[in-house]
Amino acid sequence: MIIVMKPHSTDAQIDGVVTHIQSLGYRAHLSKGDETTIIGVIGDDRPIDRTLFETLDGVEKTVPILKPFKLASADMHPPDTTVPLNGLPVGGPKVAIIAGPCSVESRSQIIESAHAVKEAGATALRGGAYKPRTSPYAFQGMGEEGLVLLAEAREATGLPVVTEAMATEHVPLVAKYADVIQIGARNMQNYPLLNAAGEARVPVLLKRGMMSTIEELLMSAEYILAKGNTQIMLCERGIRTFERYTRNTTDINAVPVLKQMTHLPVILDPSHGTGKWEYVAPVAKAGIAAGADGVIIEVHPDPSHALSDGAQSLKPEKFAQLVQEIRRVAVAVDRS
Amino acid sequence: MIIVMKPHSTDAQIDGVVTHIQSLGYRAHLSKGDETTIIGVIGDDRPIDRTLFETLDGVEKTVPILKPFKLASADMHPPDTTVPLNGLPVGGPKVAIIAGPCSVESRSQIIESAHAVKEAGATALRGGAYKPRTSPYAFQGMGEEGLVLLAEAREATGLPVVTEAMATEHVPLVAKYADVIQIGARNMQNYPLLNAAGEARVPVLLKRGMMSTIEELLMSAEYILAKGNTQIMLCERGIRTFERYTRNTTDINAVPVLKQMTHLPVILDPSHGTGKWEYVAPVAKAGIAAGADGVIIEVHPDPSHALSDGAQSLKPEKFAQLVQEIRRVAVAVDRS
Amino acid sequence: MIIVMKPHSTDAQIDGVVTHIQSLGYRAHLSKGDETTIIGVIGDDRPIDRTLFETLDGVEKTVPILKPFKLASADMHPPDTTVPLNGLPVGGPKVAIIAGPCSVESRSQIIESAHAVKEAGATALRGGAYKPRTSPYAFQGMGEEGLVLLAEAREATGLPVVTEAMATEHVPLVAKYADVIQIGARNMQNYPLLNAAGEARVPVLLKRGMMSTIEELLMSAEYILAKGNTQIMLCERGIRTFERYTRNTTDINAVPVLKQMTHLPVILDPSHGTGKWEYVAPVAKAGIAAGADGVIIEVHPDPSHALSDGAQSLKPEKFAQLVQEIRRVAVAVDRS
Amino acid sequence: MIIVMKPHSTDAQIDGVVTHIQSLGYRAHLSKGDETTIIGVIGDDRPIDRTLFETLDGVEKTVPILKPFKLASADMHPPDTTVPLNGLPVGGPKVAIIAGPCSVESRSQIIESAHAVKEAGATALRGGAYKPRTSPYAFQGMGEEGLVLLAEAREATGLPVVTEAMATEHVPLVAKYADVIQIGARNMQNYPLLNAAGEARVPVLLKRGMMSTIEELLMSAEYILAKGNTQIMLCERGIRTFERYTRNTTDINAVPVLKQMTHLPVILDPSHGTGKWEYVAPVAKAGIAAGADGVIIEVHPDPSHALSDGAQSLKPEKFAQLVQEIRRVAVAVDRS
Repeated sequence: MIIVMKPHSTDAQIDGVVTHIQSLGYRAHLSKGDETTIIGVIGDDRPIDRTLFETLDGVEKTVPILKPFKLASADMHPPDTTVPLNGLPVGGPKVAIIAGPCSVESRSQIIESAHAVKEAGATALRGGAYKPRTSPYAFQGMGEEGLVLLAEAREATGLPVVTEAMATEHVPLVAKYADVIQIGARNMQNYPLLNAAGEARVPVLLKRGMMSTIEELLMSAEYILAKGNTQIMLCERGIRTFERYTRNTTDINAVPVLKQMTHLPVILDPSHGTGKWEYVAPVAKAGIAAGADGVIIEVHPDPSHALSDGAQSLKPEKFAQLVQEIRRVAVAVDRS
Repeated sequence: MIIVMKPHSTDAQIDGVVTHIQSLGYRAHLSKGDETTIIGVIGDDRPIDRTLFETLDGVEKTVPILKPFKLASADMHPPDTTVPLNGLPVGGPKVAIIAGPCSVESRSQIIESAHAVKEAGATALRGGAYKPRTSPYAFQGMGEEGLVLLAEAREATGLPVVTEAMATEHVPLVAKYADVIQIGARNMQNYPLLNAAGEARVPVLLKRGMMSTIEELLMSAEYILAKGNTQIMLCERGIRTFERYTRNTTDINAVPVLKQMTHLPVILDPSHGTGKWEYVAPVAKAGIAAGADGVIIEVHPDPSHALSDGAQSLKPEKFAQLVQEIRRVAVAVDRS
Repeated sequence: MIIVMKPHSTDAQIDGVVTHIQSLGYRAHLSKGDETTIIGVIGDDRPIDRTLFETLDGVEKTVPILKPFKLASADMHPPDTTVPLNGLPVGGPKVAIIAGPCSVESRSQIIESAHAVKEAGATALRGGAYKPRTSPYAFQGMGEEGLVLLAEAREATGLPVVTEAMATEHVPLVAKYADVIQIGARNMQNYPLLNAAGEARVPVLLKRGMMSTIEELLMSAEYILAKGNTQIMLCERGIRTFERYTRNTTDINAVPVLKQMTHLPVILDPSHGTGKWEYVAPVAKAGIAAGADGVIIEVHPDPSHALSDGAQSLKPEKFAQLVQEIRRVAVAVDRS
Repeated sequence: MIIVMKPHSTDAQIDGVVTHIQSLGYRAHLSKGDETTIIGVIGDDRPIDRTLFETLDGVEKTVPILKPFKLASADMHPPDTTVPLNGLPVGGPKVAIIAGPCSVESRSQIIESAHAVKEAGATALRGGAYKPRTSPYAFQGMGEEGLVLLAEAREATGLPVVTEAMATEHVPLVAKYADVIQIGARNMQNYPLLNAAGEARVPVLLKRGMMSTIEELLMSAEYILAKGNTQIMLCERGIRTFERYTRNTTDINAVPVLKQMTHLPVILDPSHGTGKWEYVAPVAKAGIAAGADGVIIEVHPDPSHALSDGAQSLKPEKFAQLVQEIRRVAVAVDRS
């Protein structure tokens, strides 16, 4: 980190900062400019809170220099990581398409959905058994019964299953019935859950929080990596902004930023990113054009009777058409 | 809710919507304007996802009419709720001052802090044993050992203890050692945790998520209330915006908005709201002037050696002075 | 608009609102629900400030029903508008590529840039003569001299010129030398400037403000349309969010939203949208995949000596490659 | 500024950066850490765009060290500036209260308002003759006729007049009729207007843009200061966030931040900051408690018939009561 002193800081104040740096086991490097002095801290200062120095006399601010993540960094891990999904290495040349309903609602609904997305060309099936809902009065998911139905749908179609765990106690169950544990946006900084996912030996789909920076997403991945689980797919699913015509704002920039910063594969979720089914297809294609390794899309056989997220769900026939369109865009950017 | 039809929607489309409303057990009320038709849904439609209707032919958008929360609403619960804290009914005329270090770091640190804030006039002691940290390399809290030290500090000073639970499995432990369970900003929408706090028979300090709306804060309180726990203090602790000179943006508007919308007491956290100790005092006073029922403030005997949040912690002598200043402002707005 | 009454509003309060509606020349339509009453205002209420009703006794809130824009609405103007640019109807099947340096810096720089982007396949040349700069100490543009050089570059290459007017007094000059008047993001709500652009008989490229909603962008277009100028291209150039790895967040959702809501063509600016040249190509391709009618891209022969926006400028050879890539994506989404 | 090199940058890349620094007339200072090298640029680098260096080989990012503003900085100008308003030095111990309607609507309305706010104890009268409105269909202000009426209201009451100029061509007129030129939020980065205000020899009330950082506000003040006008009051009027229960989010933190960073007085606008009259009084008091030098408040004799901003306007009797409350809070923070 860099410590920037106030314009008229005294030698005693500078000495105080240097002493403090050394007392923490680091080396200090001074650089005097015309208007101010800056002090560099030499050594891996990731474990300390840099703002501590801001309480010392004469300090104006501190500036981080090292990226706070290590294991997630592209610098540290060439070549890129791929995560196998139904035989497809996600992060490789072929784009993955994960699709299915927001929630598992019944046997017929999930089996029908699974067959529909499989026929359309999906790589994997999504569907929630545990549902984080803003309102306690809304449908909260079928729980373990939903997991059993998802396993049945996999049996019937061969599609691997991606489903969310909302609490540490769900992790073993999800790992038992499903192929990929999803960590939802609201839980991106639920550290006990990240640790549990890190200890599970199952791939993780980690969604970016709607209020989280890309750096924080990578730090959450770092929690999972630090526990030894390297099978992580990162998912951009839209962030919260002032714009009101869409439910969220898809941060399309995050796709190339992540592809540059990390070795982990990147999935785009245009369903949550927009919140409206009419906008899902164009934004899904945009994600692939920007370099995403796959998309995750909500598909429901009867959206206007869905128990959650109906407004952003595609009907199976629209989805089938979108898969074709995605393939054309993938080819245009040298993917398949 | 209101369903707004597209400008040139047909009678068949309107009939379709009305039939759908009725099939869900509600009544429909049509209103034809010059440019468009709107359809009101009569009945308590809180349990259904209003956006479902947006998938029907001819529908342009839906608009909620009822507030989505009930138990948290000021309409439903006069007079205001007070939460007892050290004999002080929080939400009554006297303002509460909760203070202490971000984290429990050692016996001497927490005991010294407790004595210091008690002498300065604090109502309760805060201190974290479980710490949600962005980085896996940062200090994660002392865990149960920290809880034991907090209980000791209470023993030594008589101050009740406010401390965070980060997971359902922490709740029984926190309820055993502490007086108030804090739900942190990152966990405001951790629904299993909210349910567990609702089932505990201990007061809850519920912090607003850094990118959650006031409505979502009230919906999270609704989860706790729905489980039968009415002893909730809401806490505004700053939201995330584009502004970079401060760590967060204190949403001072939230104070009068919450005082109008809900019967629950409102606490302001100027330490997280600003992220810099120099700004804590003015914003704490602003909170009281705006009608907050109390403040929660980080105080550390040696901020530049704090293991977390040093930059926003006050030294005990600054805190003692602030308590005096807060009292003067409280009197000026007819509090005490 | 809809007026929502408070839960326990009285008949006298409801009568008061109805009378107020009628006094303003509108009709009222009552709808009594189980918990509250809502009152619809019938007639084109766009000219009145709906929040006025929020000051009446018993009113909880008001909700707009009509879209506030008319002339910009897709409903009112089928088929889509196209804006001719160098013989290419922007908004038609072929995508437009506008390119050039951020600022005109010298004759050689702009002439060289113009030849480079022309050879690469650009449709039009961009370049700023008047530059809105955050700092008064930064380069402020060459002014009219820059306009003269732009006209020379057009002469030399045949490329039409897009350049910004920052004040009403610039409009006649820009209209004299250039082919398209750009209204920059900081001026999206500079209403005297919008009016002046509306009165000019030259196409306008209207950039979305960095913290303006899509609706506000359309309202600003409405100002220009209301003055009789229908030759408008809308430009999404990134919005301001909490994310810090990129200069702005490209709102890719805005592309399909605008294509649905308005008849005006939509251009994406991935240079400002990302702020970093490495991310320009993927986001440009994303824009085309999402349905944009064109892109506007900063290209500079020597970015590290540019007087403004060097970090987000492509070198000519990278740009030439990007044009080829854009063409492939355009074909994949049935454009050319 | 500091230039941070990529982890594995080569000596040739470092030399390239150093040469570039020197070619621009600055000195370079190298500091090699364990993982990366940083290079300090010595000299006043405010005029150059630091991101230029980000296009050089091996550079990861650049970090500003100097504050970009000079004349506005508290460091450069002790003691604090005061701006005289009706004999009151704004920025001194006594707080200023500027009040009046959003728009001048008629002679009787503005004269009545002026008398009402004067009797209640206001320091100055506000009222808009030129109104920036989102919709071209909304009332746009009375223009010069409104200025004449404002001058009449000053004549009648002795209150100085604060009113907005929206374009350079308004500045001489506003300077002729009024005492303070207001630059509105939408025009905070309208640089021709800032320059014109800087050349006028009349005090300026500069409102923060709803999408502008505190630093950008200070940079806009710097434009005015650089033209020789030092009579500037800065105004926090709420920023745009994701929160929807209020029109804007009052950035209360901005008050102590500005008081620390600059010598210019700071005014809070709780009317725009909240957008709802019920919240104006608590937030006004919060502003004074936080250290603001004054408040600007919308007051209208008949808010439900106001032509703009009725929902956030206080009735005269509420305003009179608020003035008393503000005085009590001012005394409690050692102001008057």
